[in-house]
Amino acid sequence: MEKMKALVFKDIGRLVLEDRPVPHVQEPDDVVIKISRVGICGTDVKIMQGKHHFKPDTVLGHEFCGEIVEVGSHVHHVKLGDRVSIDNNIRCGFCSFCRMGLTSQCVEIKKNAIGVMRDGGYAEYCLVPEKQCYVLPDEIDDVLGSQVETLATVVNGMNHLQMLPYDYVLILGFGPIGYLFAQFAKNIAAKVAVTEIDPFRIGVAKECGLTVWNPHVDDIEKNITEFTYGRKADIVVEATGNALEQALTCVTPGGKVLPFGMDSSITASIVPNEITRWATKIIGLYLGQNTMVPAIRIFQEKRLNMKPFFTKVIPLEDGLEAFGCLGLDPNTLQHQPKSAMKIVMKMQP
Amino acid sequence: MEKMKALVFKDIGRLVLEDRPVPHVQEPDDVVIKISRVGICGTDVKIMQGKHHFKPDTVLGHEFCGEIVEVGSHVHHVKLGDRVSIDNNIRCGFCSFCRMGLTSQCVEIKKNAIGVMRDGGYAEYCLVPEKQCYVLPDEIDDVLGSQVETLATVVNGMNHLQMLPYDYVLILGFGPIGYLFAQFAKNIAAKVAVTEIDPFRIGVAKECGLTVWNPHVDDIEKNITEFTYGRKADIVVEATGNALEQALTCVTPGGKVLPFGMDSSITASIVPNEITRWATKIIGLYLGQNTMVPAIRIFQEKRLNMKPFFTKVIPLEDGLEAFGCLGLDPNTLQHQPKSAMKIVMKMQP
Amino acid sequence: MEKMKALVFKDIGRLVLEDRPVPHVQEPDDVVIKISRVGICGTDVKIMQGKHHFKPDTVLGHEFCGEIVEVGSHVHHVKLGDRVSIDNNIRCGFCSFCRMGLTSQCVEIKKNAIGVMRDGGYAEYCLVPEKQCYVLPDEIDDVLGSQVETLATVVNGMNHLQMLPYDYVLILGFGPIGYLFAQFAKNIAAKVAVTEIDPFRIGVAKECGLTVWNPHVDDIEKNITEFTYGRKADIVVEATGNALEQALTCVTPGGKVLPFGMDSSITASIVPNEITRWATKIIGLYLGQNTMVPAIRIFQEKRLNMKPFFTKVIPLEDGLEAFGCLGLDPNTLQHQPKSAMKIVMKMQP
Amino acid sequence: MEKMKALVFKDIGRLVLEDRPVPHVQEPDDVVIKISRVGICGTDVKIMQGKHHFKPDTVLGHEFCGEIVEVGSHVHHVKLGDRVSIDNNIRCGFCSFCRMGLTSQCVEIKKNAIGVMRDGGYAEYCLVPEKQCYVLPDEIDDVLGSQVETLATVVNGMNHLQMLPYDYVLILGFGPIGYLFAQFAKNIAAKVAVTEIDPFRIGVAKECGLTVWNPHVDDIEKNITEFTYGRKADIVVEATGNALEQALTCVTPGGKVLPFGMDSSITASIVPNEITRWATKIIGLYLGQNTMVPAIRIFQEKRLNMKPFFTKVIPLEDGLEAFGCLGLDPNTLQHQPKSAMKIVMKMQP
Repeated sequence: MEKMKALVFKDIGRLVLEDRPVPHVQEPDDVVIKISRVGICGTDVKIMQGKHHFKPDTVLGHEFCGEIVEVGSHVHHVKLGDRVSIDNNIRCGFCSFCRMGLTSQCVEIKKNAIGVMRDGGYAEYCLVPEKQCYVLPDEIDDVLGSQVETLATVVNGMNHLQMLPYDYVLILGFGPIGYLFAQFAKNIAAKVAVTEIDPFRIGVAKECGLTVWNPHVDDIEKNITEFTYGRKADIVVEATGNALEQALTCVTPGGKVLPFGMDSSITASIVPNEITRWATKIIGLYLGQNTMVPAIRIFQEKRLNMKPFFTKVIPLEDGLEAFGCLGLDPNTLQHQPKSAMKIVMKMQP
Repeated sequence: MEKMKALVFKDIGRLVLEDRPVPHVQEPDDVVIKISRVGICGTDVKIMQGKHHFKPDTVLGHEFCGEIVEVGSHVHHVKLGDRVSIDNNIRCGFCSFCRMGLTSQCVEIKKNAIGVMRDGGYAEYCLVPEKQCYVLPDEIDDVLGSQVETLATVVNGMNHLQMLPYDYVLILGFGPIGYLFAQFAKNIAAKVAVTEIDPFRIGVAKECGLTVWNPHVDDIEKNITEFTYGRKADIVVEATGNALEQALTCVTPGGKVLPFGMDSSITASIVPNEITRWATKIIGLYLGQNTMVPAIRIFQEKRLNMKPFFTKVIPLEDGLEAFGCLGLDPNTLQHQPKSAMKIVMKMQP
Repeated sequence: MEKMKALVFKDIGRLVLEDRPVPHVQEPDDVVIKISRVGICGTDVKIMQGKHHFKPDTVLGHEFCGEIVEVGSHVHHVKLGDRVSIDNNIRCGFCSFCRMGLTSQCVEIKKNAIGVMRDGGYAEYCLVPEKQCYVLPDEIDDVLGSQVETLATVVNGMNHLQMLPYDYVLILGFGPIGYLFAQFAKNIAAKVAVTEIDPFRIGVAKECGLTVWNPHVDDIEKNITEFTYGRKADIVVEATGNALEQALTCVTPGGKVLPFGMDSSITASIVPNEITRWATKIIGLYLGQNTMVPAIRIFQEKRLNMKPFFTKVIPLEDGLEAFGCLGLDPNTLQHQPKSAMKIVMKMQP
Repeated sequence: MEKMKALVFKDIGRLVLEDRPVPHVQEPDDVVIKISRVGICGTDVKIMQGKHHFKPDTVLGHEFCGEIVEVGSHVHHVKLGDRVSIDNNIRCGFCSFCRMGLTSQCVEIKKNAIGVMRDGGYAEYCLVPEKQCYVLPDEIDDVLGSQVETLATVVNGMNHLQMLPYDYVLILGFGPIGYLFAQFAKNIAAKVAVTEIDPFRIGVAKECGLTVWNPHVDDIEKNITEFTYGRKADIVVEATGNALEQALTCVTPGGKVLPFGMDSSITASIVPNEITRWATKIIGLYLGQNTMVPAIRIFQEKRLNMKPFFTKVIPLEDGLEAFGCLGLDPNTLQHQPKSAMKIVMKMQP
């Protein structure tokens, strides 16, 4: 049996480089991808810490692209040789949520996530259903191509925010998600500021020409009030998972808060009367939805400054080390200072 | 100087029937209303308890209609003899919120509320700016005419909820606001249920033909799940001020929660990750906005079953007693069981 | 080879009762339906006249329900014995429209329509892909179950119209589509009026308690202006295919026009400046989209008065005659007066 | 009586420099503006040709800013010395449209337009109601300040278009309105192209770095199809008044058309069935609405490239000549080639 290299999540705290059998099509609508590039997501770090749902002995990795090298008997819309990016979230298509267009609320979405609950892209090959594949145009290289799904989640956010040219925007947290929202806001909005505590990422924000504040040092509510001539932010994107309370103090009356960061260990204490009195709109949303094609369009036209986004591209073998750069102390599994924004692993030269 | 009867809020717990001077126009755009009917609002009860902002020595009452008996020199759009209903919230028209169409977020809206911060409708006459007046068509009698502003706040809620014919709707709290939302939902939605703890109001809900549950007795989350064949509610209207946490457990993934009840003493403990994971939309909004004319249209066409809404019509002299029926123990200022939905006072026979 | 009865569209003007082979599953995701009831749609009448795209020698019928009697090897979400209603429009799931959620703009939607371009429901059995099937709850009988797709198109209209309780609504044309919009408007809106020229259908409108005007007799613009106290209609549903010009004269400034009727032979002459000056919104939309489940919800709760909708239920053998009742002179293929609203054929007793 | 210079529209084809009495406050809410800069609008050119409603012997000019030099007795929100930009459209505030938030559909909006139906800004002083004044921040100079209302109309368009980062945008007509839409699209959208027939303005489009096509030379439908990889435009802004038919051929299924140009002499021949079949949304809207403050925000932050917008700044005396640059042959009142985008007149040095 043919073997491939794979970085396998064995259990909390254990990510191991192994030889695994190369997967082959099983269902008529399956395809096999020869992976080119795979990104390391903050979710992967959380899985390593046991802070996200997980399945032991699974190949991690859900941000990837590659070439189709095998197709099932009923694959009709992609073909051998296609260079594709993957939507890792498989929606059943039959539950009442899927059938009412709310595919990100699919009742089975959690069960089948590629790179979380079934083998993903930290490997040379990956088996995925045809419908998860999106052909990449030539203008998008493989590194960028690994980030289509990442951008797709942010585009879903943009669809719901309906950001306008006169909006004042505040983004709490400047990880990869905050980065992408900030690029959009920089293009669209009247003004944008971001917050971040990690020195490396503060540096990236400055490199992007953004106004950046550190909540450990600065009074964010005061700053955003001055920055907006007393109005506060029309839109607050909460991209850390732990700052909803702060978001509510920074948003203008009638404004929108997007709680996008995810940390199930956080509880917020809020006064519902304030939401009513100040007419705040809190817009929960989850994953991308109908936004893979839009994300491809945006990357294809080079509409975002993606240079400072990619800290480095490394071989699969260096993957564990990369988790350290993304804030995970490999010994304690606790948080340590970050020294990267996005790290991508290359399976092919 | 001409005198009139007025029910005056002297200070917390003290509502006194007094003789006060009849008001006359002061500004060129003022008019004087000879009041016909004035409703007692839950807000008035909260003012009596000191649980809402207030101004001592003020004539309460913000739900009223009557006839125009005096007009200022620059009043051009209403005239002597017009029968009008009042929007008690005066918007400045010049702050950035007013000028961007968010008139309910007007920076001065709290300062000038008629019947709260300046003399209102618990009296024979009231002075108001012309622009607060809305002429009533013949199809709306004076009792109904006193409730236009009440309905206008609910219509603002309806504008934001965009209720659809296939929605499952849950309304938490069956006071006058819950009542009006329930009437709309009964007309529009696929199914509607309400919750209420007060036996009198549970009885009114049943009289309206509504499914009603008591959160002190019933498991609301379980009930709504069964009621909706496992889906939970597409829309939850929180009309008590203290049940946001419950609302979040009863709403379907991707659904909407409208926190409409107002109680500034309540704090809710929520997990922001749940809002994100379940894509919940929390839609804060405050007062009516552009909805007085719509409210008049709805009453004019008799589109809501308003019969069980009005518990009784009483003379001004019995106003204090009515507060008791609305749940205020006059001695302790604490909550007591209610024996009314809406009580209206008549100033004219 | 097993045979079944089928009413086959041979070519323009020729609908023939034939024996055809019973279909069997071909693709892994196919199912075979034993049909119970099938409705005759206005589109079927247009196909007979050659006024709609068509494919000769095809079993017509796209409004149907029945029981699943055979399933392919990869059918996982429905099972033998399920009673299902059919969405006759097959969406590819892979074009950029499908993938951006605009499934009704699927580039292949026209090619594969069941009952138009491939064999449909005027027969004892029909072959359909699993994903077109929607299980019916017990509250919906087979006659009603044949109309789920019809209602789904109207619900798509309702999703886009966002009808509000204070809207004045005008519906041009009282065929089955106008009927369903009128039922919704009667539940939701402040006022509703319909227009119709056919005496039989005018009678049905009256039976439904609707205000109905005949554009051959009445001045519709004048009537709607008076009916709305000078305002005109907030929403005009054009459900005839030939009255867009009239719709534009009947809609209030800032109002919405839904051009829902379809007649490709009609050209309208409009002044674009009027659309701008009067801020009219013209909301084109096509078929249902994510609305089969919502339509089922609405029928399940008996939210619409459907009694006058169904003129009669007939055997398949009488199908051709029924086309006459629906306005098609069988000899000339020209329009003749109608004597029915909806006619349903029964394949099973 | 004090005199001032004014450029007065005497009647069709006659614009005359006259001495007129300096205006003074009449109503308690009036203010007098000492005008600094006033723009020449395409509407002014149409008035000269008799192609727009007009009132003889009126001072034209509705795009202006200046200093408040006199205030009425009830002016409370602006003060002497304030530098303000003017919204020339006076809304009554009392009709059902104003009161439902549709202030641009105010029933009196046409009667009172400053610079059209009452004296405007082609003069040293102008009388306006207080509520039409918007204080300018220091970052906006007087030339830019004259264009706030122009931008406000375009921002109203942007509010309705809800342009997204993955949209393909086509703008038909590159006059001042097309210019401003194109600047927004360049910031926000995936791709943008414009059309224009006038060589001078084609040059400005190129100076802005825009893709520009000439409908007299190029096949616009073919070009937009290729430009968008076969999809056509998600958004078409019709900014000429005569190209709605073309807009409909260039918009993608499910896309939006904004008919923004105004020419009441144009009739379009359309097939309503196409709007339905291709799910086109035609979004009529008129003037700005709640968008003066947003326009000021955008100019304040220098979010648009406005340099090529202003062709020249001239003294009032040269105003008539400027009409020639804007396409009006002064002898024939017919169209001649343009040699300007926006021309602003200065009343003060």
